[in-house]
Amino acid sequence: MKTRDKILLSSLELFNERGERNITTNHIAAHLNISPGNLYYHFRNKSDIIYEIFQEYEKLVDYYLDIPEDRPLTLDDLAFYLESVFDGLWSYRFFHRDLEYLLDSDSRLRGDYREFTARCLVAINRIFGKLAEAGIIKPQPEELRAAMSLNVWLVITNWMAFLKTAHAGAEPASLSIAELKQGIYQVLTLEIPYLMPEYYEQVMAMREKYRPALAATG
Amino acid sequence: MKTRDKILLSSLELFNERGERNITTNHIAAHLNISPGNLYYHFRNKSDIIYEIFQEYEKLVDYYLDIPEDRPLTLDDLAFYLESVFDGLWSYRFFHRDLEYLLDSDSRLRGDYREFTARCLVAINRIFGKLAEAGIIKPQPEELRAAMSLNVWLVITNWMAFLKTAHAGAEPASLSIAELKQGIYQVLTLEIPYLMPEYYEQVMAMREKYRPALAATG
Repeated sequence: MKTRDKILLSSLELFNERGERNITTNHIAAHLNISPGNLYYHFRNKSDIIYEIFQEYEKLVDYYLDIPEDRPLTLDDLAFYLESVFDGLWSYRFFHRDLEYLLDSDSRLRGDYREFTARCLVAINRIFGKLAEAGIIKPQPEELRAAMSLNVWLVITNWMAFLKTAHAGAEPASLSIAELKQGIYQVLTLEIPYLMPEYYEQVMAMREKYRPALAATG
Repeated sequence: MKTRDKILLSSLELFNERGERNITTNHIAAHLNISPGNLYYHFRNKSDIIYEIFQEYEKLVDYYLDIPEDRPLTLDDLAFYLESVFDGLWSYRFFHRDLEYLLDSDSRLRGDYREFTARCLVAINRIFGKLAEAGIIKPQPEELRAAMSLNVWLVITNWMAFLKTAHAGAEPASLSIAELKQGIYQVLTLEIPYLMPEYYEQVMAMREKYRPALAATG
């Protein structure tokens, strides 16, 4: 593996484990056993590392949320989208934690993140549209579908913060990917009232797989 | 006004305007034209100031979310709860911005915040229950009501971050309370499918008042 890629990988690992705020370029260099000068040869500063990591995250999510045009969606597609989005959140979990601060420090990242959010909202909206076409959920007027899509986004992007700050059992450091995926339970909760009767039981069974062991209200 | 109260008020103002991360106890003392020693006489450190500000926030929200036992809820109550919660978010907006970091730095605050979240979830759940009793929304099984309440909480507590990070128009510094209250549109979106026909038009009209000028996906 090239030094450049090693730097990105180690940075992501260190940011996720200890928080971006607590990691300097010196920590990253020391972790890789390279000189700070060698690191600076590849990246001018930590912002450049973060920006490149974000671009990888973006590519991953764009790839997962590439909605097929030529066929109807199935429940398996829905499960795949949800699993993939939460896998992405987990792999790049440092990012949403310090999001506002990161965006305030880098206007490039701020612009890109806005476009990324807009693309994700369009993708969620299209998923709702195609689930309706497939007869899985009831069709909704565009205004409602846009507002529902935004609620899905708000639930997904806030779920990790909820677990880390408010959940009775979770210690800050001990979050697991299984707990993170309990967010899927919350996302599917949003869809319950729109389910067509033919699919109700199947979606409820899918949702049940993600039910938290403890009640969320603790 | 007592020095102690002035310190709390100025700190809140400075935290909200410039971000807690960028404000030291020296900034606060300079802002008030008092010596750092005088400030330390009242508060040992910045964490103690933040903790006390949080306690005021908590008291405010607990007061607003005191659900009456002796009478049914009305749509005016619902409007009052929503307006009050978003007023509180606005007045203490620095808090949710850096929440995870603040909680990681103060275990007292972490414990209190968890209990606060749990109380809010119980209050939202009771509001749903009482709205159903009043014939405004359809009654829901307890499991669904708890999951819906959590979604309401996730939407409310993530709305400001969404505006600041992802909204096409908003510059980080220029957020207004009117934009913040557009979050009410999103919260009421969650309730639409549960509305009883007799109240549908009224709630939709209430929601319309908070509709964003620009489409959120724009």
